[in-house]
Amino acid sequence: MHSSQVAGVGVIGHGTVGGSLVETLRLRASEIAARTGIEFQVRAVAVRNKTPERIERLGEDVITDDAHSVVVRDDVDVVVELMGGIEPARSLVVAALSQRKAVVTANKELIAACGEELIELARSKGVDLLYEAAVAGGIPVVRSLRESLGAEDITRVVGIVNGTTNYMLTRMSEDGLGYDEVLAEAQSLGYAEADPTADVGGLDAAAKAAIIANVAFGSSLKTADVFCEGITSITKDDMELASRLGFVIKLVAVVSRDAKGRPGARVHPMMLPKDHPLASVRLSFNALFVEGATSGELMFYGRGAGGGPTASAVLGDLVDAAHNKLRDATGWVARSSDVGVWPIDEQSSPFYLTLDVADQPGVLAAVARIFGENNVSIRSMEQLGLGSEARLVFVTHEARELDVRATLDGLAAIEPVRKIGNVIRVMESV
Amino acid sequence: MHSSQVAGVGVIGHGTVGGSLVETLRLRASEIAARTGIEFQVRAVAVRNKTPERIERLGEDVITDDAHSVVVRDDVDVVVELMGGIEPARSLVVAALSQRKAVVTANKELIAACGEELIELARSKGVDLLYEAAVAGGIPVVRSLRESLGAEDITRVVGIVNGTTNYMLTRMSEDGLGYDEVLAEAQSLGYAEADPTADVGGLDAAAKAAIIANVAFGSSLKTADVFCEGITSITKDDMELASRLGFVIKLVAVVSRDAKGRPGARVHPMMLPKDHPLASVRLSFNALFVEGATSGELMFYGRGAGGGPTASAVLGDLVDAAHNKLRDATGWVARSSDVGVWPIDEQSSPFYLTLDVADQPGVLAAVARIFGENNVSIRSMEQLGLGSEARLVFVTHEARELDVRATLDGLAAIEPVRKIGNVIRVMESV
Repeated sequence: MHSSQVAGVGVIGHGTVGGSLVETLRLRASEIAARTGIEFQVRAVAVRNKTPERIERLGEDVITDDAHSVVVRDDVDVVVELMGGIEPARSLVVAALSQRKAVVTANKELIAACGEELIELARSKGVDLLYEAAVAGGIPVVRSLRESLGAEDITRVVGIVNGTTNYMLTRMSEDGLGYDEVLAEAQSLGYAEADPTADVGGLDAAAKAAIIANVAFGSSLKTADVFCEGITSITKDDMELASRLGFVIKLVAVVSRDAKGRPGARVHPMMLPKDHPLASVRLSFNALFVEGATSGELMFYGRGAGGGPTASAVLGDLVDAAHNKLRDATGWVARSSDVGVWPIDEQSSPFYLTLDVADQPGVLAAVARIFGENNVSIRSMEQLGLGSEARLVFVTHEARELDVRATLDGLAAIEPVRKIGNVIRVMESV
Repeated sequence: MHSSQVAGVGVIGHGTVGGSLVETLRLRASEIAARTGIEFQVRAVAVRNKTPERIERLGEDVITDDAHSVVVRDDVDVVVELMGGIEPARSLVVAALSQRKAVVTANKELIAACGEELIELARSKGVDLLYEAAVAGGIPVVRSLRESLGAEDITRVVGIVNGTTNYMLTRMSEDGLGYDEVLAEAQSLGYAEADPTADVGGLDAAAKAAIIANVAFGSSLKTADVFCEGITSITKDDMELASRLGFVIKLVAVVSRDAKGRPGARVHPMMLPKDHPLASVRLSFNALFVEGATSGELMFYGRGAGGGPTASAVLGDLVDAAHNKLRDATGWVARSSDVGVWPIDEQSSPFYLTLDVADQPGVLAAVARIFGENNVSIRSMEQLGLGSEARLVFVTHEARELDVRATLDGLAAIEPVRKIGNVIRVMESV
């Protein structure tokens, strides 16, 4: 048997993920040492409140309520940051890296907001900063994009990266529930928080979209660079119409580049063809669909949240970071380049939209003229009777966002158009 | 801009994959250097025949028909072996590693047969031996299992790892074609070879199963340790009955461990519930469904073959190998342990089978007694009339392979059983 090297671990935060990680490192210590050659010793765990139950479980010599003490301990080689939010997490990570400790984090807000600065600091100190768990819980997509596909020409990534909204949309689509009903259910199951804004408004997905773009393209987008539209306006009617047209509606993060190489990232509901691999990603599962010029289509599927899956991703990073730290090396990091941002106005996709119009002759011609004047070409139109009104259901060919907005302004201004319903982007047919 | 380091590459084999790789390394050289910090220079490409067209394309100073000369060149840092088969590939890889050159290979036969020996040699020389492309073309599952999930307690991997048979089974299932018809079609499309044995008999998948088990469990299985049953006996009738029962039939590679930690690997057709993520893997796509104790369920999906996808996987390994070689390091390799093999007789799953029996009283009782005597419990039975005979369609609860074989022997020996149809393993419901 080979001998093992010891790696000291300091953990900041002891919620579901921290608890699962510390338990795994302790219960499976000998198995992990046999497999990886590294004996992980949890030297310190910082908690907000030193409850008697936690002191009992972690031990008086390991538990602390002083997070800063963890990152400066001489016997800690790798710091695992699991507290979330930007401050004080950022200061603690800066302190750890400055002390030449490797850092593993699951903190998407921190990486989306300060990733460039922290990665540069880690590089200058010659230590690793790894954040697999920040994007899609247990799915090893960050390492795959960074290493396996590090030299690939990634053309687009489309991801379902928020389990809460995917659960809600799945229930609406499969069981005909309404938005409010399914939100209440998700809250009662603990999938959605009392204030669900970050999930249903798309902000959680937007932070992940920025990180995915930066890993895939070597860019330096922040959350604020991500166009973001949530699911709050999606109705049962949209779900039914989508299904009749051969689609399902999912909240997706899309990252891609324009011809100049400028990265764009956006989060919004999207109609996906029913036979697309992402369409069968149900309930709270996550998946990332990656399109590469050489690799072709790839998909990574799994649990995007939860203590176990997130701890699994942290553990993978921990092995990598410890292995590198013990031989005083770092993993390879793709170089980034700043080429600006692809503005949302210039991005394009097909669109679905519904118009309620007066049921009278000449309306369709008036409507079609406005599409045409704005360079938006109609792929299909269906008319549903609604008594004295009619509902027109359009799917366009690929159209620029700016042109679609101008079209909507034009439509709103003409008399026979009574109401413009939801406007939902559609995935191009392959 | 950072400066780049130069890595010399020698390629053995210039078929679809080699051609795609060399083209990518040349056309995207500056982009890859900007991203990875490594300027790849293709120093030598060994081909079987120096045709004028190849000399023209590769250059007189790069092309050679002496493969051995490639692995001993001083200016080659990484050797890419793409010739396939065991010899002379094995000797060339041994020579390359012995010269302390990193090796990247797409050769599943070689790794399944000689992986342990070659990995040990690479380790002793302090260089990398990487083989992502040997398992499922462009899908980065080897690195994910080895690194991201290197400390995970993997309980099972179920993979669709042969595109030819998945194409055939998809066409049979979705379009009602028969086996011979679809084989002829696959051959005319170039998906199946003139002698399709390695694909339809399951041997190609078996080599991959051995490699997957060894990466996931640190074991040292060889192809001969893999239980192997192909798709040649699957009929249209089986497909239709499977569909009625809520299943699709796929050729799968399954690797798992028994309670003692002994690894088992098998390849056979399997009935998968229609809502299982693997069930929607269609046509020539591949996918690996990974179950981990902490990570939960993961799936990796993509193109399992073809020049581009395979070259993409090779390129990922090449960046990793070159990066390590230039700083005189290696990636971390999980340690293996030899704990024997889980014999197929002791493995278990639910089974589907059909019996054609004389349509007379008492037959079901006689049949059921034989199941019971052999500890095989029946989950469902359906009887279909066939004139003077009846077809009984059984799905059992989970049963040991040995017990199922004894049951089949017992059934074959009683008079009312006229014919035992296909026996197909069924995936446990989750």
